[in-house]
Amino acid sequence: MASIESQTLARTRDDARLHDEQDPLAFVRARFRLPAGVHYVDGNSLGALPRTVGERLAHTVEHEWGARLVRSWNESWIDLPQAVAEKLSPLLGAPADAIAVTDSVSVNLFKVLAAAHALVPGRATILAEAGEFPTDLYVAEGLGRLLGPALTVRTVAPEALDEAIDDDVAIVLASHVHYATCRKRDMAATSRIAHAHGAVTVFDLSHSAGVVAIDLLGDGVDFAIGCGYKYLNGGPGAPAYLYVAPRWHGRARSPIQGWLGHAAAFDFAPGYQPAPGARAFHCGTWPILSMTALDAALDVFEGVDMGAVERKSRALCSLLLMRLQPLCERHGLRVVGPAALDARGSHVAVRHPEGYAVVRALIDRGIIGDFRPPDLMRFGLVPLYLRYVDVWDVAEALAEVLDQRLWDDPRYRQRQQVT
Amino acid sequence: MASIESQTLARTRDDARLHDEQDPLAFVRARFRLPAGVHYVDGNSLGALPRTVGERLAHTVEHEWGARLVRSWNESWIDLPQAVAEKLSPLLGAPADAIAVTDSVSVNLFKVLAAAHALVPGRATILAEAGEFPTDLYVAEGLGRLLGPALTVRTVAPEALDEAIDDDVAIVLASHVHYATCRKRDMAATSRIAHAHGAVTVFDLSHSAGVVAIDLLGDGVDFAIGCGYKYLNGGPGAPAYLYVAPRWHGRARSPIQGWLGHAAAFDFAPGYQPAPGARAFHCGTWPILSMTALDAALDVFEGVDMGAVERKSRALCSLLLMRLQPLCERHGLRVVGPAALDARGSHVAVRHPEGYAVVRALIDRGIIGDFRPPDLMRFGLVPLYLRYVDVWDVAEALAEVLDQRLWDDPRYRQRQQVT
Repeated sequence: MASIESQTLARTRDDARLHDEQDPLAFVRARFRLPAGVHYVDGNSLGALPRTVGERLAHTVEHEWGARLVRSWNESWIDLPQAVAEKLSPLLGAPADAIAVTDSVSVNLFKVLAAAHALVPGRATILAEAGEFPTDLYVAEGLGRLLGPALTVRTVAPEALDEAIDDDVAIVLASHVHYATCRKRDMAATSRIAHAHGAVTVFDLSHSAGVVAIDLLGDGVDFAIGCGYKYLNGGPGAPAYLYVAPRWHGRARSPIQGWLGHAAAFDFAPGYQPAPGARAFHCGTWPILSMTALDAALDVFEGVDMGAVERKSRALCSLLLMRLQPLCERHGLRVVGPAALDARGSHVAVRHPEGYAVVRALIDRGIIGDFRPPDLMRFGLVPLYLRYVDVWDVAEALAEVLDQRLWDDPRYRQRQQVT
Repeated sequence: MASIESQTLARTRDDARLHDEQDPLAFVRARFRLPAGVHYVDGNSLGALPRTVGERLAHTVEHEWGARLVRSWNESWIDLPQAVAEKLSPLLGAPADAIAVTDSVSVNLFKVLAAAHALVPGRATILAEAGEFPTDLYVAEGLGRLLGPALTVRTVAPEALDEAIDDDVAIVLASHVHYATCRKRDMAATSRIAHAHGAVTVFDLSHSAGVVAIDLLGDGVDFAIGCGYKYLNGGPGAPAYLYVAPRWHGRARSPIQGWLGHAAAFDFAPGYQPAPGARAFHCGTWPILSMTALDAALDVFEGVDMGAVERKSRALCSLLLMRLQPLCERHGLRVVGPAALDARGSHVAVRHPEGYAVVRALIDRGIIGDFRPPDLMRFGLVPLYLRYVDVWDVAEALAEVLDQRLWDDPRYRQRQQVT
């Protein structure tokens, strides 16, 4: 904790620059292609472009697809999702054969919820927190709609989730790091309580994997899902992934029996036989071009210690939170989520009634964050490519926009979609 | 039909070359990047590379992702699947708002089967043909497994499908063109019979769209699905598509309620409200890089009349079938599927006990077809980029391999995966 505390002591931009000079992760930034004049603090929505992706993708298009054609299925593509799973393994704290890289987060959540539900016979409740990432609740409710009274979703206040787990609960569904509040849930504690009541856990890692050290196996998590395009930098709509705890291998069944989840996909045999491990949750043919980009992107983690990433994440968050403090007092800005750094993920979210226009004004100044209705501004602080000076500059720009009321401009107040 | 008949009269390679000179679709071949020394007759598995894909994808990576970052969601990506649907519209004979481009064929089939089932209350049978494309049956059976006795799959002999439709049937599931037998089903006739019995139809267009003229709306089809990487040339694992007949819009519900199928996806509001039309069947975030390749690829159909494509398809098939006739007599090669050209799709499949080794030997000679166990060789004759002389040469090579027993070589007989 000493090193974190020292990071928070940056009182000037020169202090921040000094921290950058001493940053053991400073070398990773060069692995990204970052546009000039931009401070990119929206890696929580879409990660920046790793340098190697373009060349790798060009090779896949021109050589693998164009020249080798269908032969590339054997030569290059059939094992690609497994190669990606190998790269994800240290980031998730999970054996590679417990990870499947496929489909979207929504589809993967649907699959693991259905599988989990079948493992807890006679129970009909998915317990989730109110205010959970909306699409996760949509998907859970949709499965409930399909299965009728056999499955319903019950939501409780976030802080009451663990204590609400009882013997009626089949599945506890929660984000590891919450998209809005930045709160990081203790997956081990929740899993322990769930298991004591005979329930299983499903965690959404979309806002944590790649910036937070994760130990799915050690934490006793049953199932997890997550996306490839935020902190994993896999590109827009990159393939998602899912985790199936080894103890469920061979028992958890995907409800969508696509051919690539078959034990012998290429036999084209009648009758479905699930593949071993998490591979049983593969489904239709993977989008190979997007999968290739994700595979190349994950090389930025080579030689990167996730403990160091998490430490820098906390230091960056600490710096921004400290710099926002005066703005909270002057402008009624409200920081969302826990105060304790170790209870947070790697983004900082603040509420302001004019949040939408503020984010637009910041974007005009090269500070790219994002906005979520009704009033939430989010700044993703990605340790792999952000410097302490970047965070300093973001805070300065925000102060300028608020102090000078730059948001009060019709150009910024007129609503467009901000993704 | 006169023109088709005349095409079949190619008795020499010079005749075939003459047909190429008179081919009204000859100009389309230049839109593809085809490797030298290869006759590619596996477009039924993976379409060839359209020339514009590489440049378009490089722009998306370097400019849209790398430079514009998350802003590209508004500037370039959010409407991309709709743009693809617009390009598919004339190929499928369907209004663009009845088409959703998303996910894989397996996932889309799962979604439309679940939606269709809910539209026919009280009925529990999916009727399909024995020997249907295996993954389609896997998916149907998986949905049945999830829903319990509320849904089961019944298979009948392909030629008995229409007459097996009775008042117990909820859904008739069939391929438009069968992957193995090449048989083309009359979607209008099957839909008429299904509707007379209160059932709905789901057709898989994977082996027909792009080579056969299709009129989903006119044929009264209820739902359809299909893949982007075969005759649509969208690249390996390209996003798939689905069709929801306009009369079901607002009533057919996807069981996988992902955020992009929400009427107001970016509001992040609690409670799921399906988007209008087929958009309700969008789900999680699309793989934009793969979607971009598909979008660029579909431009090869610009100015291409699908009637002309179907006519050339029949002529190519006719030529190959004629040239295979002597091989059937000499080597026990058996042509699969109907004799009538208008009852066939655009590939030719033949059975031979040594089919696997024959296909390997052909690949070694630059003839890339494919093999499906136990003994099926398939040759996809794609009118957009194949010439009559190509088909001629394929037949010659096959004759050489069989006449000289070139397949009887340990290199070829040792099993590897042939995709």
